[in-house]
Amino acid sequence: MKQTVLIIGAGGVAQVVAHKCAQNNDILGDLHIASRTKAKCDAIVESVHAKGAMKQDGVFETHQVDATQSDQVADLIRKTGAEIVINVGTAFVNMHVLDGCLATGAAYIDTAIHEEPDKICETPPWYANYEWKKRDACAEKGVTAILGAGFDPGVVNAYARYAIDEFMDEVKSIDIVDVNAGSHGKYFATNFDPEINFREFTGVVYYWEDGKWKEKSMFETGREWDLPVVGKQTAYQSGHDEVHSLATNYPQADVRFWMGFGEHYINVFTVLKNIGLLSEHPVRLAEGQEVVPLKVVKACLPDPSSLAPNYTGKTCIGDLVKGTKNGSDVEAFVYNVADHKDAYEEVGSQGISYTAGVPPVAAAILIAQGDWDTKTMKNVEELDPKPFFTVLDRIGLPTRVQIGNDDRPWNA
Amino acid sequence: MKQTVLIIGAGGVAQVVAHKCAQNNDILGDLHIASRTKAKCDAIVESVHAKGAMKQDGVFETHQVDATQSDQVADLIRKTGAEIVINVGTAFVNMHVLDGCLATGAAYIDTAIHEEPDKICETPPWYANYEWKKRDACAEKGVTAILGAGFDPGVVNAYARYAIDEFMDEVKSIDIVDVNAGSHGKYFATNFDPEINFREFTGVVYYWEDGKWKEKSMFETGREWDLPVVGKQTAYQSGHDEVHSLATNYPQADVRFWMGFGEHYINVFTVLKNIGLLSEHPVRLAEGQEVVPLKVVKACLPDPSSLAPNYTGKTCIGDLVKGTKNGSDVEAFVYNVADHKDAYEEVGSQGISYTAGVPPVAAAILIAQGDWDTKTMKNVEELDPKPFFTVLDRIGLPTRVQIGNDDRPWNA
Repeated sequence: MKQTVLIIGAGGVAQVVAHKCAQNNDILGDLHIASRTKAKCDAIVESVHAKGAMKQDGVFETHQVDATQSDQVADLIRKTGAEIVINVGTAFVNMHVLDGCLATGAAYIDTAIHEEPDKICETPPWYANYEWKKRDACAEKGVTAILGAGFDPGVVNAYARYAIDEFMDEVKSIDIVDVNAGSHGKYFATNFDPEINFREFTGVVYYWEDGKWKEKSMFETGREWDLPVVGKQTAYQSGHDEVHSLATNYPQADVRFWMGFGEHYINVFTVLKNIGLLSEHPVRLAEGQEVVPLKVVKACLPDPSSLAPNYTGKTCIGDLVKGTKNGSDVEAFVYNVADHKDAYEEVGSQGISYTAGVPPVAAAILIAQGDWDTKTMKNVEELDPKPFFTVLDRIGLPTRVQIGNDDRPWNA
Repeated sequence: MKQTVLIIGAGGVAQVVAHKCAQNNDILGDLHIASRTKAKCDAIVESVHAKGAMKQDGVFETHQVDATQSDQVADLIRKTGAEIVINVGTAFVNMHVLDGCLATGAAYIDTAIHEEPDKICETPPWYANYEWKKRDACAEKGVTAILGAGFDPGVVNAYARYAIDEFMDEVKSIDIVDVNAGSHGKYFATNFDPEINFREFTGVVYYWEDGKWKEKSMFETGREWDLPVVGKQTAYQSGHDEVHSLATNYPQADVRFWMGFGEHYINVFTVLKNIGLLSEHPVRLAEGQEVVPLKVVKACLPDPSSLAPNYTGKTCIGDLVKGTKNGSDVEAFVYNVADHKDAYEEVGSQGISYTAGVPPVAAAILIAQGDWDTKTMKNVEELDPKPFFTVLDRIGLPTRVQIGNDDRPWNA
């Protein structure tokens, strides 16, 4: 049984991870959190204590680390004695944190694909560009690495696996739909780090259909979905991490991702993109200074974690999975609905951070309990979804299933 | 008779000024052009020779200067022997170039109000903040300084003076309308330096009505104008340099400025402004770098001088002046229509640069001829407009007058 958790990162998602780890420190043991700016970690741990979130008395220490330096990460793992690392720092640090885990034997959990700061929307399958190259190293050293264990990727991968295993002989398609029907009251804001958020939409939309990769441009294909609780919402086909691993694990299925956008978001995005302000390539100012426009946009936009206090409304994220059972067509929609205000009241973060931050803690609990302590590298759909759902039900993200007119908890 | 001209600046307007000076070097004598980047000056003089624009054989030399340093400007005036300086550099250098002229006795011409880089849309009357404080110094030293001698400010100030002198006993209102009905074929671009262009619209709209300054916000008041040649166009009340001097010289008249904008421009402007990307206040990036967002937007947008080759359509800029004559209401619209393609073919610049660059050369010719060699500081409406119109007719910006159904050249 592994214990002692080190959280890397101190943004909105890290805030959720910290609170949820604290609420489960009877299972997870001592807790540590580290980021480039220690003061941000201090603020998070203060908020944990302010909410009385620690289930039992225990350690919750803060540290400074440059997570782009794997030896600094390894040193911190040794110093803290962490056996589980939850990496919710920027996607630019993933491979460096993973290397730190490989050097020390600690289990690794992340929530997004590694990105190199100077590249954007590399060609699929993205996991093969970086993470999967370390699969053999993980197996050799017996290091547990759970990739993409947020909501999407993460929970939606488990939804796909569950729907296929439970209701189908054969899968035909997996459509993942992510709709935020909440309102933050600002003119414009992204729910995640703008650098990561925009980069998802500035490149080619890759999707898997008819057994091969196909391409679209962003906002080329939109469709109105009628979803539980949040109702009719327009979502657009987008590229997303989990399409790449699901297409590798279920090559016989079409795999697509749909992200909900309002007209205002699309207008602002289109203006910024067309002017070149979402570019990660530096421009030279008249005065000679070299600047990456996207980083300036990020600096001008509200900090995603600042949105929480006034965020209202709900999110709905789920998988519409189609296939056949005994020769007949079947389809199931496996989903979760989360509430922004509830999330803020519980952990001081908005619902988007909540849905991203709760699942990696569920994964950490499953590693601690042994259910998911794989001693090798796995994507979430390669693991048994049922213990995951059981923990998620308990810690705040219950799974529901809609089949025809029947809508019920997954295990009802 | 003053001769030998030094042009400060090397942007799109300076290009027009250089060509027009060359076409009139029989009157203006030796020509010099200087900017921070000498290579830009070299390119302009090359284009002058490529067009065969020099009316007679003569000097056209290029120089490097930091025009924010008045002693460098003074040294260059002495070195070149310039008796007339046409300042079409950024508005940030105005006072420094004027100081260079005061130190040497050279005549000074500019086309916009001085701005300090760290201030924006100061309270009116702007001229009183900087330029007019040097009026006594100009008079003492007998230095000719013609302020705001572009199109607007500049020609439109002369239009107001002319309409009042010619058609009225009493003036009631001056509405200046500036419509660019041209198309540059880019997603978005500004026709002038974006730093100056946007700063005009990010602050409060000041206008003069009922004998006092009033305030509006940008795009608060729009109105459809039915204009000669370009037809029906929507223009919005904006702040503009000439409102400030005209309100001082004609305090009995309401003075307003109207700028034409399409819906697309307004949308892009609104997005950039609301996000904070038009701010001249530095933001700190996550990596620690301090950056002025507006300078990044500028670096991303097309260089205004690059728009010229594909610019089509026309501009219409004029003054609707209302008043009374012998107790009856009268109104006159004094205006010019310019063509982008014609401008490019003649001087390699688009029509907006053309309308801004031709008038200061007309002013230089009037100083050289003695008509406007005032030996003190003047705004354009304080000078006789007729010789100005006569030169403008000859060098490319003919003045027309519309009264009721009658539409004719000003001197017909």
